[in-house]
Amino acid sequence: LEAKIITIGDELLIGQVVDTNSAWLGAALEKINIKVTEIRSISDKHNTIINNLHEMIASTDVLIITGGLGPTNDDVTKNALVEYFGSTLAFHEETYRRLEKLFARFKIPIRESHRMQAYLPNNCQVLINEMGTAQGMWFEKDNKIVISTPGVPYEMHYIMEHSALPMLEKRNPDHKIYHRTIMTVGWGETKIEEAINEIIEDIPEHIKIAYLPGLGKVRVRLSSASNNGEIAEVMSVSESICKKLGDIVYGFDDEQLEAALGNLLLEKDLSVGTAESCTGGFLAHKITSIPGSSRYFKGSVIAYDNSIKQEQLKVSPETLEQYGAVSEQVVIQMVQGLINNYKVDVAISTSGIAGPDGGTAEKPVGTIWIACGNEQNIKTRKLQLTKNRLKNIEYTTIAAMDLLRKFLIQ
Amino acid sequence: LEAKIITIGDELLIGQVVDTNSAWLGAALEKINIKVTEIRSISDKHNTIINNLHEMIASTDVLIITGGLGPTNDDVTKNALVEYFGSTLAFHEETYRRLEKLFARFKIPIRESHRMQAYLPNNCQVLINEMGTAQGMWFEKDNKIVISTPGVPYEMHYIMEHSALPMLEKRNPDHKIYHRTIMTVGWGETKIEEAINEIIEDIPEHIKIAYLPGLGKVRVRLSSASNNGEIAEVMSVSESICKKLGDIVYGFDDEQLEAALGNLLLEKDLSVGTAESCTGGFLAHKITSIPGSSRYFKGSVIAYDNSIKQEQLKVSPETLEQYGAVSEQVVIQMVQGLINNYKVDVAISTSGIAGPDGGTAEKPVGTIWIACGNEQNIKTRKLQLTKNRLKNIEYTTIAAMDLLRKFLIQ
Repeated sequence: LEAKIITIGDELLIGQVVDTNSAWLGAALEKINIKVTEIRSISDKHNTIINNLHEMIASTDVLIITGGLGPTNDDVTKNALVEYFGSTLAFHEETYRRLEKLFARFKIPIRESHRMQAYLPNNCQVLINEMGTAQGMWFEKDNKIVISTPGVPYEMHYIMEHSALPMLEKRNPDHKIYHRTIMTVGWGETKIEEAINEIIEDIPEHIKIAYLPGLGKVRVRLSSASNNGEIAEVMSVSESICKKLGDIVYGFDDEQLEAALGNLLLEKDLSVGTAESCTGGFLAHKITSIPGSSRYFKGSVIAYDNSIKQEQLKVSPETLEQYGAVSEQVVIQMVQGLINNYKVDVAISTSGIAGPDGGTAEKPVGTIWIACGNEQNIKTRKLQLTKNRLKNIEYTTIAAMDLLRKFLIQ
Repeated sequence: LEAKIITIGDELLIGQVVDTNSAWLGAALEKINIKVTEIRSISDKHNTIINNLHEMIASTDVLIITGGLGPTNDDVTKNALVEYFGSTLAFHEETYRRLEKLFARFKIPIRESHRMQAYLPNNCQVLINEMGTAQGMWFEKDNKIVISTPGVPYEMHYIMEHSALPMLEKRNPDHKIYHRTIMTVGWGETKIEEAINEIIEDIPEHIKIAYLPGLGKVRVRLSSASNNGEIAEVMSVSESICKKLGDIVYGFDDEQLEAALGNLLLEKDLSVGTAESCTGGFLAHKITSIPGSSRYFKGSVIAYDNSIKQEQLKVSPETLEQYGAVSEQVVIQMVQGLINNYKVDVAISTSGIAGPDGGTAEKPVGTIWIACGNEQNIKTRKLQLTKNRLKNIEYTTIAAMDLLRKFLIQ
């Protein structure tokens, strides 16, 4: 089956709200092998909704509409659906009883605008919404399915998970799609493509490959039908690719780099800390963004000022004087200082000029040193970045986590 | 003028990537009074792109297309535009020289697939991209404008901000809208609306008001035509609103809270540092995300482990034992400890249970203490949050910065 999605609301068009519903629906539908072929965000005007209903239903099996079902005046999806499907509104006893209960719980009187939400099209199947006042609706006509849900994400999730997705799954005769995503860090899309070109040329036609680049990282995704034989083929191609790509592969299937690093530290039973100058705490933040990171992360020194580098990390004033704060010598001493002062097994350090100001001819904006290691051994790397302040901080953080990851697996 | 947006990429349809580009573009275009009437996310197939180009251009003035411009095979937007506009690809010397410089800096050889990115349609205006290898393109035909940018958000932002938006602004005869945005932190949308209800009822009809809620913050935006008399009226309404809202107003016109805090610290010539447990460095990161923050930010202790709280911040073992790490007593000692150890004038501290695990009956997930102050005086606040780990960290960071802001202006 194929599906299209309409998200309704002016707040989406003027950028007040990011449309996260579409991505959630896309991922949920893909899991039951319903392919989303188009997503539209449109205004909450009656005619706009009607026109888009006509256009989109013509070329798909399933149409999912989110938004425009609330009690206020700018919500018009229900009336558009009534017109499109030639419905009449009927009082839905069960929905009204649910509203009564909900309002009693919050001790709010039921207003007329809320009572109207119990009037639902007579030719739809009502999809129960336990999370709010607007119910979901399931229409069928000429072998097409139209589903309407509120735009509030957790209400939409509830309706989809509890009724619409299971109902759709039963209707979908096709087999499932299997995805294998190889997570890489350190190489660009082009370099990866060239490295695995020979493998790709030989893979069966039913396996599709996509490169999904992000800052510092590229996801390589293989997709195929999920019959047993085909999954085995995908896994075999995945293994060939991983072998070719070597240690730039840090995980699979949307694993985050910080989670992969955390798992490595847990495996090796090592505690970690960071000594950060230019990343200003972002490295510690990424590591601690993972639930349960307190099992391996002990703490950090954010040493923006050189006095903190000297006093807390024992970076020598002579080294600072001779090489400057942005130097290999200083990031090495920062790692050593953190290991000694914070009693961590391994440490990561950063020092650089994130920009937009502070650069010199010798050390332009974007010059960054990173280091990591333990008591015996320290690895360093120089970065020369070209992006804006925040992207430079983010990229440095990725490179620093990756430096430690490689240190741990070497 | 009216605009439509196409975002291209299968990763959007299967929900691997949330489309943030559309919201960013919607907000940016709205500021120059260009109304976005539709957003479509479509597959990166040649014919799909061509068909949508035809359909969407017919009913709009400006069409913005993001995505599908990378060097790998799944990127097809450029060829679709070449066909649509009857272009031929021409070698663009300036782009090639930029690529050469970029690759020389990274010491990477230019591959054939990269060289191809210097071939651009002969009938477009090239929009320079300093952030990546794919250039932006500006086409005009039959009084319609089509703009194409890469899908990587910071590359798209760069091209829009540096060339496309200024160029569009010049073309838009009704672009002179004046916006005054009042930035608030701490109250919800409804509370603000109720507080200023009387003022709003009396404002001239040509002044429009919008409430733009975000995590912990609400922007109150006044808009009007930008003739002198009307600007004066907007400013007068803005002053009345600010007077009514009092110290929840921290700035104007999209100023960030961390920037407002930085300016206060500069004004008062105070240095700052943070002592963070549950925020794990995110507070230091937000403060140092502002260019020039090294003038007031000295450094931080990220004290995830209690041993770090004791050794680096002199939190007493008895206090930890008696009250637990998540307590008013501990965040007070963390502030004191940082001021003593890091020689900062003022400090902020956080300790809490960000989740998803680690809660108890007495201190459920989302229980968080924050504190700030100087040597003489410390303010504290307890938060009881209900969101997920990252949102709890983000909200705590906003509340902690706001606590210090209010401490400094009291």
